[in-house]
Amino acid sequence: MEEKNIIVFGHKNPDTDTVCSALLVSMAEVKKNRAVDAKVLGALNKETEYVCNFLQIEHPPIIESIADSQKIIMVDHNEFSQSVQNIENANILEVYDHHRINNFRTRDQVLMDIRPVGCTATILYDRYSRIGVEFDFEMKMLVISAIISDSLLFTSPTCTELDKETALKLAQEVDIDIYKYGNDMLSAGTNIQDFTDKEVLNIDAKSFEVGENKYFVAQINTTDIDLLITSRGTGFLKELTKIKEDNGFNTALFLMTDILNSNSKAYIVGSNEKQIVENLNTTVSNHIINLPGVVSRKKQIVPFL
Amino acid sequence: MEEKNIIVFGHKNPDTDTVCSALLVSMAEVKKNRAVDAKVLGALNKETEYVCNFLQIEHPPIIESIADSQKIIMVDHNEFSQSVQNIENANILEVYDHHRINNFRTRDQVLMDIRPVGCTATILYDRYSRIGVEFDFEMKMLVISAIISDSLLFTSPTCTELDKETALKLAQEVDIDIYKYGNDMLSAGTNIQDFTDKEVLNIDAKSFEVGENKYFVAQINTTDIDLLITSRGTGFLKELTKIKEDNGFNTALFLMTDILNSNSKAYIVGSNEKQIVENLNTTVSNHIINLPGVVSRKKQIVPFL
Repeated sequence: MEEKNIIVFGHKNPDTDTVCSALLVSMAEVKKNRAVDAKVLGALNKETEYVCNFLQIEHPPIIESIADSQKIIMVDHNEFSQSVQNIENANILEVYDHHRINNFRTRDQVLMDIRPVGCTATILYDRYSRIGVEFDFEMKMLVISAIISDSLLFTSPTCTELDKETALKLAQEVDIDIYKYGNDMLSAGTNIQDFTDKEVLNIDAKSFEVGENKYFVAQINTTDIDLLITSRGTGFLKELTKIKEDNGFNTALFLMTDILNSNSKAYIVGSNEKQIVENLNTTVSNHIINLPGVVSRKKQIVPFL
Repeated sequence: MEEKNIIVFGHKNPDTDTVCSALLVSMAEVKKNRAVDAKVLGALNKETEYVCNFLQIEHPPIIESIADSQKIIMVDHNEFSQSVQNIENANILEVYDHHRINNFRTRDQVLMDIRPVGCTATILYDRYSRIGVEFDFEMKMLVISAIISDSLLFTSPTCTELDKETALKLAQEVDIDIYKYGNDMLSAGTNIQDFTDKEVLNIDAKSFEVGENKYFVAQINTTDIDLLITSRGTGFLKELTKIKEDNGFNTALFLMTDILNSNSKAYIVGSNEKQIVENLNTTVSNHIINLPGVVSRKKQIVPFL
């Protein structure tokens, strides 16, 4: 259980936008003389580790549950199933997010700034800079890193003009080569050498409820999908099946996304396999579906579940 | 069913904030060259009629349901139970509100500007004036009227500094005596002479779901609670009991609020009567509860259900 002052955190299986956004809220609020502690709901992935190493920022502490009536700020998520344990009893003060809203509720009035953009950090930069909060080098790099991550360096269909403009403007201000930094950062995230199959499937795993069905959709970035399938595919499929069965998912997917060529393939298992393959207008063979041009789970997979 | 262009509307049993906010979005969007039609989900109450007469604005058309995938902007509410029929299948583009969030969901990404203030029109004024939309006399008066209504001329505990500042600033700009206009407007809303008991209970009725229980909480403003009870109390209680039974409410309340002295009394019927009276830390006699100092359903009643 956590202390009673205000804390800010993103979703489970933290990704770079979730971690950077929690850090940004914490840093921006300090400048407004309000103490807000950044937390994470799990270990950082390799890509986010790269960002923290680059900036020499300590990893935020991991929490698993919160006390009743804990004052919280949520970033980069709103679905309770993707949030901290005991979220139902939190005192939710603020929410900054760019995802669809799914059965969200609060006890009392709340401040919500939700926008249809590609990255939560884009919203935070716009919001805080408008009210005069100055972004230092570290904060600018956190915004840049989050946008690179969520937009796969501007190649994802989720990326909006505002995301790209913000990242390019800030990159110019801090004087970095955003394409060099971005490729290094994204490549760092593809290194899964020292991960078990189970760990790989949990690097960026989300669950979604659609009507009565629960879906598991994990995703990783890679630079060579076919090598990944040849070398570790059997293990992935076995682990994916286990996750589906142990957790009562209707269907489970594991998306492998080629960040250099903007394509994906996915493992799929479960009773809606045929229907989903049809919805996605593609083909399946040995539980592997071909997804040319697909890079966004949110825009290109979830709506078809 | 409604046409397919964008429409904006507030909650069922429209009150002044809901109607003014829908009109404000429509008028502000026109200035941004975007057509958004204001609608209402029922007939206007006497108070809102007063505002429309004062400004010589036509009442927005009433709608009862919407077509699948209708593009909508919601103001002053988010609970589906308080919204239009078929809201589940709407394409929700934007939400501007100041109420707690209750099981809200969207199909896709959305723009939400939700703030813990006393009035939706306060949010809309701040939002649109920041992006350079000019407020003419009519729009300024709509903001002023909405704030007067939701804050009972700044006496409600729901009223924030921003609400009061906004209304006073705009009143100065349009050069009206806000206290004179406000009292006239609020008094117009207390005239229930030509309303049946059933109509009175539906002037400003809301339903709330708390856990498994459904509550009905209606409210009217008056200048003399005791006269109201003596002259029409028996009829109100009979009608309230009927509403509870016909609609499967656990408990139903009818709040009568003295806008001059900032007090209320309420009729209450239902199986949680005793518990609610206890929660409110007050007494009950013949189904009438005494609520000294209570003027806000949202802040002073709903949290105790």
